[in-house]
Amino acid sequence: MIVWALLTSVGINLGLCLLFFTLYSVLRKQPSNLDVYAPRLVAAKKESEQRNGFNFERLLPTAGWVKRAWQPSEDELLLVTSLDAVVFMRIFIFSLRVFGFAGIVGVLILLPINYLGSQLDVDFDFSDLPNKSLDSFSISNVSDGSKWLWVHFCAVYIFSGVVCYLLHYEYSYISSKRYAHYYSSKPQPHQFTILVRGIPVSSGSSCSETVERFFTEYYPSTYLSHAVVRRTNKLQRLTSDAEKLYRRLVHLKSETKPQQRSRRDGFCGLFGRKVDVLNQYGKKLENLEDNVRMEQLSVAGKEVPAAFVSFKSRLGAAIALQIQQGTNPTEWVTERAPEPQDVHWPFFSSSFIKRWISKLVVVVACAALTILFLIPVVIVQGLTHLEQLETWFPFLKSILNLTVVSEVITGYLPSLILQLFLSFVPPIMIMLSSMEGCISFSQIEKSACTKMLWFTIWNIFLANTLSGSVLYRFNIFLLSPKRFQESLLMLFLHRHHSSLHSVVTSGWTSLLSSELFRLHPLICSIIKRPFSGKDDDELEVPSIPYHSDIPKVLFFGLLGITYFFLAPLILPFLVVYCCLGYIIYRNQLLNVYAPKYETGGRFWPTVHNSTIFSLVLMHIIAIGIFGLKNLSLAASLIVPLPILTLLFNEYCRKRFLPIFEDYPVECLIKKDREDQNDPTIAVFYNKLSTAYEDPALMPIRHPRSTDDHNSPLLQAGV
Amino acid sequence: MIVWALLTSVGINLGLCLLFFTLYSVLRKQPSNLDVYAPRLVAAKKESEQRNGFNFERLLPTAGWVKRAWQPSEDELLLVTSLDAVVFMRIFIFSLRVFGFAGIVGVLILLPINYLGSQLDVDFDFSDLPNKSLDSFSISNVSDGSKWLWVHFCAVYIFSGVVCYLLHYEYSYISSKRYAHYYSSKPQPHQFTILVRGIPVSSGSSCSETVERFFTEYYPSTYLSHAVVRRTNKLQRLTSDAEKLYRRLVHLKSETKPQQRSRRDGFCGLFGRKVDVLNQYGKKLENLEDNVRMEQLSVAGKEVPAAFVSFKSRLGAAIALQIQQGTNPTEWVTERAPEPQDVHWPFFSSSFIKRWISKLVVVVACAALTILFLIPVVIVQGLTHLEQLETWFPFLKSILNLTVVSEVITGYLPSLILQLFLSFVPPIMIMLSSMEGCISFSQIEKSACTKMLWFTIWNIFLANTLSGSVLYRFNIFLLSPKRFQESLLMLFLHRHHSSLHSVVTSGWTSLLSSELFRLHPLICSIIKRPFSGKDDDELEVPSIPYHSDIPKVLFFGLLGITYFFLAPLILPFLVVYCCLGYIIYRNQLLNVYAPKYETGGRFWPTVHNSTIFSLVLMHIIAIGIFGLKNLSLAASLIVPLPILTLLFNEYCRKRFLPIFEDYPVECLIKKDREDQNDPTIAVFYNKLSTAYEDPALMPIRHPRSTDDHNSPLLQAGV
Repeated sequence: MIVWALLTSVGINLGLCLLFFTLYSVLRKQPSNLDVYAPRLVAAKKESEQRNGFNFERLLPTAGWVKRAWQPSEDELLLVTSLDAVVFMRIFIFSLRVFGFAGIVGVLILLPINYLGSQLDVDFDFSDLPNKSLDSFSISNVSDGSKWLWVHFCAVYIFSGVVCYLLHYEYSYISSKRYAHYYSSKPQPHQFTILVRGIPVSSGSSCSETVERFFTEYYPSTYLSHAVVRRTNKLQRLTSDAEKLYRRLVHLKSETKPQQRSRRDGFCGLFGRKVDVLNQYGKKLENLEDNVRMEQLSVAGKEVPAAFVSFKSRLGAAIALQIQQGTNPTEWVTERAPEPQDVHWPFFSSSFIKRWISKLVVVVACAALTILFLIPVVIVQGLTHLEQLETWFPFLKSILNLTVVSEVITGYLPSLILQLFLSFVPPIMIMLSSMEGCISFSQIEKSACTKMLWFTIWNIFLANTLSGSVLYRFNIFLLSPKRFQESLLMLFLHRHHSSLHSVVTSGWTSLLSSELFRLHPLICSIIKRPFSGKDDDELEVPSIPYHSDIPKVLFFGLLGITYFFLAPLILPFLVVYCCLGYIIYRNQLLNVYAPKYETGGRFWPTVHNSTIFSLVLMHIIAIGIFGLKNLSLAASLIVPLPILTLLFNEYCRKRFLPIFEDYPVECLIKKDREDQNDPTIAVFYNKLSTAYEDPALMPIRHPRSTDDHNSPLLQAGV
Repeated sequence: MIVWALLTSVGINLGLCLLFFTLYSVLRKQPSNLDVYAPRLVAAKKESEQRNGFNFERLLPTAGWVKRAWQPSEDELLLVTSLDAVVFMRIFIFSLRVFGFAGIVGVLILLPINYLGSQLDVDFDFSDLPNKSLDSFSISNVSDGSKWLWVHFCAVYIFSGVVCYLLHYEYSYISSKRYAHYYSSKPQPHQFTILVRGIPVSSGSSCSETVERFFTEYYPSTYLSHAVVRRTNKLQRLTSDAEKLYRRLVHLKSETKPQQRSRRDGFCGLFGRKVDVLNQYGKKLENLEDNVRMEQLSVAGKEVPAAFVSFKSRLGAAIALQIQQGTNPTEWVTERAPEPQDVHWPFFSSSFIKRWISKLVVVVACAALTILFLIPVVIVQGLTHLEQLETWFPFLKSILNLTVVSEVITGYLPSLILQLFLSFVPPIMIMLSSMEGCISFSQIEKSACTKMLWFTIWNIFLANTLSGSVLYRFNIFLLSPKRFQESLLMLFLHRHHSSLHSVVTSGWTSLLSSELFRLHPLICSIIKRPFSGKDDDELEVPSIPYHSDIPKVLFFGLLGITYFFLAPLILPFLVVYCCLGYIIYRNQLLNVYAPKYETGGRFWPTVHNSTIFSLVLMHIIAIGIFGLKNLSLAASLIVPLPILTLLFNEYCRKRFLPIFEDYPVECLIKKDREDQNDPTIAVFYNKLSTAYEDPALMPIRHPRSTDDHNSPLLQAGV
């Protein structure tokens, strides 16, 4: 790829970004789009009053939202959103710092050295710049065995040191935030509750009795209450049906005039005798609700040997959580309870062996998916090898010879097709994680996040970079492993073009189009709008999909770190990406996403591990590259670096990781003592004992927005 | 090796064994040898009355001790010794069961199939049996691709199943023993105490105050007392010197008449003026004791930021142990406290980073030792390749051509030299483990046991089996990895001769000579006897060296499991070894060894893991062998077996391993409630608060065997 092609690509993407930016600025102000661009504020009824006013300013693209997104301090952000959101923003700040430093070193020091190298036999003619290959900006342009390579060597050492320092700083900063957040939190049910699984129910007594007996026996002073989990899959279906029917009834009642309420009961409402729709729906709802009540009664017997056990103090819950309960370690297995709204009720397989097997199956399935995904990747990569394509399909020759077509095919198509394929992966990973036996959405997302990360690294970075041509060169491996390794490294080096591309296309443009502009929800909303009326009740505030967004950002981090000394040209683009991401996600967190749960920043260790992995990968590549460049002394002097990095990681695991798992006695007791002086604690205890009831088992309660005599059921004559 | 050579070797060793057996039976009854053969009973003053009686029976070799060793039931053994000893005996029972089953299958089914095979082109002439190669009893004699190999295949599957079943049975049996032992135990200091390290001492307050403040703040109801650890290396030297001097004084006083108490104070007591020795020693002792007292005062300031903290209940200690204490996980690091007599005081480096680094250093040193040990192994292995030796040293040719010499050199010398080298390893491993920062002898021995196990497996099994010839064949690897792999397997197969040898020589004979006959202590005792008088006080009852004995037994287990289907001839010899070991170790545990500590059977998981490793190794070898024998279907059908075995191991890790780490709440509370009704608990609490004082810091207290006015210090006129 030549400089000109890069500039074109950057130009196109900048244009697209500007377009999306302008469109967003305008559309954001249209009241009809508020559900798309500020559902969070709508739900909080903050912006609804704006809906009716109209002024000319609404049609002007302005950048006021950037300022509004920039302004709140981190503490204000924490107040409005969650600690997880703040930690998510810290990823951008951390990346900005890393790539800011790397960019300065890379562009000011490494880039000139690379460019002035003579390995690729180019002259120092600046007038021909646009037609130069991008390779002349990479380390491949430095002559083999050149003394200048020691600058790269030093850069690798210094950069690793700086990244480790920043990692340590962030870990300790986020740890302190986590503690501060805990200290400032009000008593919350999940702090006082644990989940107990594998309850050994003896015949002749119910699960509930067994739990009651065990905990009153061993925790007489702190045990408060418990809620046994029940198998409610069927009940959940019924209640959600009833809920839907109720909504439709309310909608019908408020929208249609009495004379429109009747329709024929035959095929598609066209034939048969006329019936009052309201009446009909009312009856249906009544039937459903009867069913629900009956099912609720029958479900009481379907106990799963698992229960949420609540304690009077945080320390009590921590003791029961962290010390083995029964003599058999596979019974009375305790687990941290998630927040009540975070519990994932449907998958509650409880037996120890079952969960273990399902975990194994999921691991195998996930590995299979990750590896089988190579097939589309390899096919897509075939597109970048037009010569290959031409030999396979000769009739395409005339079309492929057009510059535009070949540019589009080699530049855009592969990444677009990949993006399409990739968009299916996060839901699959979520599904796999939920089958693993996770009991909360947060656990599922965290587990899916790790899975996505490995998937991304394996498929996009390693496989995408290497597979395209490795398959054609695999016969080299059989002849000589050493030459194979060399050609692998050279390939990797030469593929930084496509990485640049992916930063610009899937980084910049996707970020603006899908994240800021919310293309998909916008289209959905536009399509739905004529068919449905204004129904606030149905507005669901989305939550930020950490499991797909964090791996994306971390992947760019990986690109930046590994290419830092190889092809520093990528760094400025990454800095721009981080800046864009910082502003856009802040805006979205303030306006669009509502936190669905609060893990207290438990996503950070994933970020840390991924960065360490990137560093070690960079070191391994550095060893290979210095070896290739006939500087074996430098190659062997790099060897201690990955070892030191891994030791640093081990230190961090000991120093910080426990903080992200459980709170120490010191915190727990301080908070417990605060509660003792709190007059509202009795009320809280009352709430606590019912907090973990399965929502499907609650008595049917429809939101009565109007007075009782106005209730749709009454009005429908039921 | 031919059958004749094996028979010779077995004959020689049987003769040796009988000799040691007879000698032991006689020597055991001589009163002068009681210190060697029954120090435990002597210490308990049980056998001392026999010392003076003499009868003719004492000179007859009898097998009465075998009956006495056999008789006690397991519960009686547990009463007399410790749970660790019982678990150690379970290794023999487990091995006997495994090899009993394997022996029946191997000798009755596999051996005939092997012998009737025709791969090695031998005829079925039984008259020539003594001159047949041992290979005709191994799987290498079965024709390639023969249907009979499926019998071996089935045997591998069935054997793995049986071993896993037995492993599960033993794990669960020992777990129940562990709980039963805990339930029946009296209150013991280590159950109520934890070790806290990394105490964050602020300037202006002492470590002791900090600990006191922290635990009274957070554990007001259960905290009892604490003992800060002090740096006492110098003090320990001084006190042990004082102790020695005191002993010598006592000895002098009781043995010598007053007129012999004086000697000249010059060179070797030959010149100079006459002085009263008792007087002189008394003065020296006084000086030393003054020094000790001064050092004790000064040591009070040398606090290490570590302390033993005792609680009023077991649950309190467990809570403090298992829940993170401070907000910084590297501070207030808690650890299970060892028994007071088990504490290893000298190495008490306390800082988190220091311990971490020393652990790393030890791991590196241990790996280096394990790998560098290959050098003597390779040299020794050279001895079995006499042709090689002859080409190197032509002048040896005439000697080496003698059959006896060559038999001895190839058969005995290598294993003898190896044994010599190996005897240096356990002390080195103990040293390395104690440098790791372990705080108790039990931890040190456990860690050394694992180290020794890997060392043994790597060096004796893998390296010894393979290195001898692999080095000469390494060039094959460079040419073709597949042929290398084949030749590795064939080598392994053909080396079962040396394994047979090692079972017979280092198994049978060493066991009898060094363990039962106690050759080394016996010689020491005979040499020392004329020089020292009868001094009961100095008799040190040895403790069983688990770290060198367990790996030895496990190594034979590894041999038996891996050679089970390859060369079943080894199995009967192993069964004999296990029977011998069972009786001999029972006898030694009852008479010789006194338990130094009680870990409650915590050595078992090591045994379990080692057996699983042996199984998986066998499966890998089976895959290779079936591949070599042109039975690729069988080879691929074995593949699920190691996976299933590892899954089984994972299950056991979850089901049983936690039992060997901490006791569950159920146990703790039951024991605590028992204590509440115990009237002696107040006395125990008093003892508890001083249990973990460093013995070097205790006021000097010499055992006053006689009345006070009879004390040697008084008598010496001090």
